[in-house]
Amino acid sequence: MIKLLLTDLDGTLTIDRGTYKLDLEAINSLRRAESSGVKVALVSGNSYPVLRGLYNYLGLSGGIVAENGCLVFYSGNSIITCDTVPRRLIDEFKAIFNLKESWQNEFRKADFGFTPAEINNEMIKWASERDLVVQSSGYALHLSGKPGGKGVGVRKLLELHGIVREEVAAIGDSKTDIEMFEYATIRGAVANADPALLKVSNVTLKLKSGRGVTEFIDMILR
Amino acid sequence: MIKLLLTDLDGTLTIDRGTYKLDLEAINSLRRAESSGVKVALVSGNSYPVLRGLYNYLGLSGGIVAENGCLVFYSGNSIITCDTVPRRLIDEFKAIFNLKESWQNEFRKADFGFTPAEINNEMIKWASERDLVVQSSGYALHLSGKPGGKGVGVRKLLELHGIVREEVAAIGDSKTDIEMFEYATIRGAVANADPALLKVSNVTLKLKSGRGVTEFIDMILR
Repeated sequence: MIKLLLTDLDGTLTIDRGTYKLDLEAINSLRRAESSGVKVALVSGNSYPVLRGLYNYLGLSGGIVAENGCLVFYSGNSIITCDTVPRRLIDEFKAIFNLKESWQNEFRKADFGFTPAEINNEMIKWASERDLVVQSSGYALHLSGKPGGKGVGVRKLLELHGIVREEVAAIGDSKTDIEMFEYATIRGAVANADPALLKVSNVTLKLKSGRGVTEFIDMILR
Repeated sequence: MIKLLLTDLDGTLTIDRGTYKLDLEAINSLRRAESSGVKVALVSGNSYPVLRGLYNYLGLSGGIVAENGCLVFYSGNSIITCDTVPRRLIDEFKAIFNLKESWQNEFRKADFGFTPAEINNEMIKWASERDLVVQSSGYALHLSGKPGGKGVGVRKLLELHGIVREEVAAIGDSKTDIEMFEYATIRGAVANADPALLKVSNVTLKLKSGRGVTEFIDMILR
């Protein structure tokens, strides 16, 4: 029986990929899951205060994995799961690769966002030489301390819940959700998901983004 | 003609006072206002990152007045409109009056939140002796630098928009919304609003909180 639903935010709870606009019917479906005893957790590359605000105002209770896995919040406690990154390395990364910083970087601890989202080998080399991790969500580049990635945060969240993989479902749209899928028994990819995520999913939704979330929750609650 | 709708968040866009749960039909109404050419701004005591997240994901475009008036965001720029408060005064206020800090204080610049929300004369005296302002929203105590209060932020937002009072509508539920009402020609108080706000409103909604917002927007768009 599913007790926890992990959901990505951008491209998943939104009306499409590439827009911030939440699909309100999907939010309603998350609330249906909550009132049926399935706690919902947000798992995203966004900063903690942005996600905590959404979490509170959407009415969720399953916790938060913020900063692309580097910060976990559940039941009053927040935990940083990656090494923090000195500000000078963030400035250096930005300058060398001519990137624009996310407005949220000011509110982050261990994972920092930049655009454009395109990743290249020089970036990977630069990060690895400095014991850092660089990833692209398709929406932003993420530079973080080790270990980095959604997996480390999701593992910690499941530990805080005291539940196992068999009780967890997850839904997402992008490559950064692959690590989250490793901790879920039902793994839904929205219809417009990245092919790499579709490959590791076991439920391919017919509908895209937020409408796919409603389709997925209907299936879980059936 | 109304070009800008100022809306409070807690107790106004929520399903009731005293809950964080957004009324999704009210959010849908805000989007209807936006697609009818009425920009919507969030005016709240919350921190900037919490409000900016909601603003982006709800799909609004009228700007943000955060930190109970002390921080204004519109069209890519954010401006601090109050004196900032040294951390030692925040700690002192908390200790003397035995208060709990808001989790958002870490992300604030000039206005800080505490609970319980009850204000007393000693607090007002303490703040005034230190050139600070203390207010209660009914949800939290706010300690801020001068001038403080939603009015200063709303005035700056209207200036950034280049619009006048005759083009502005506002809706709220609490005493802290009184200052916002000074800058609006149509001033709606939800049915469950504080009596002090009802007194300075010119539209009293039949419905409470979020349902009152839908009622108000229907009226403005008619």
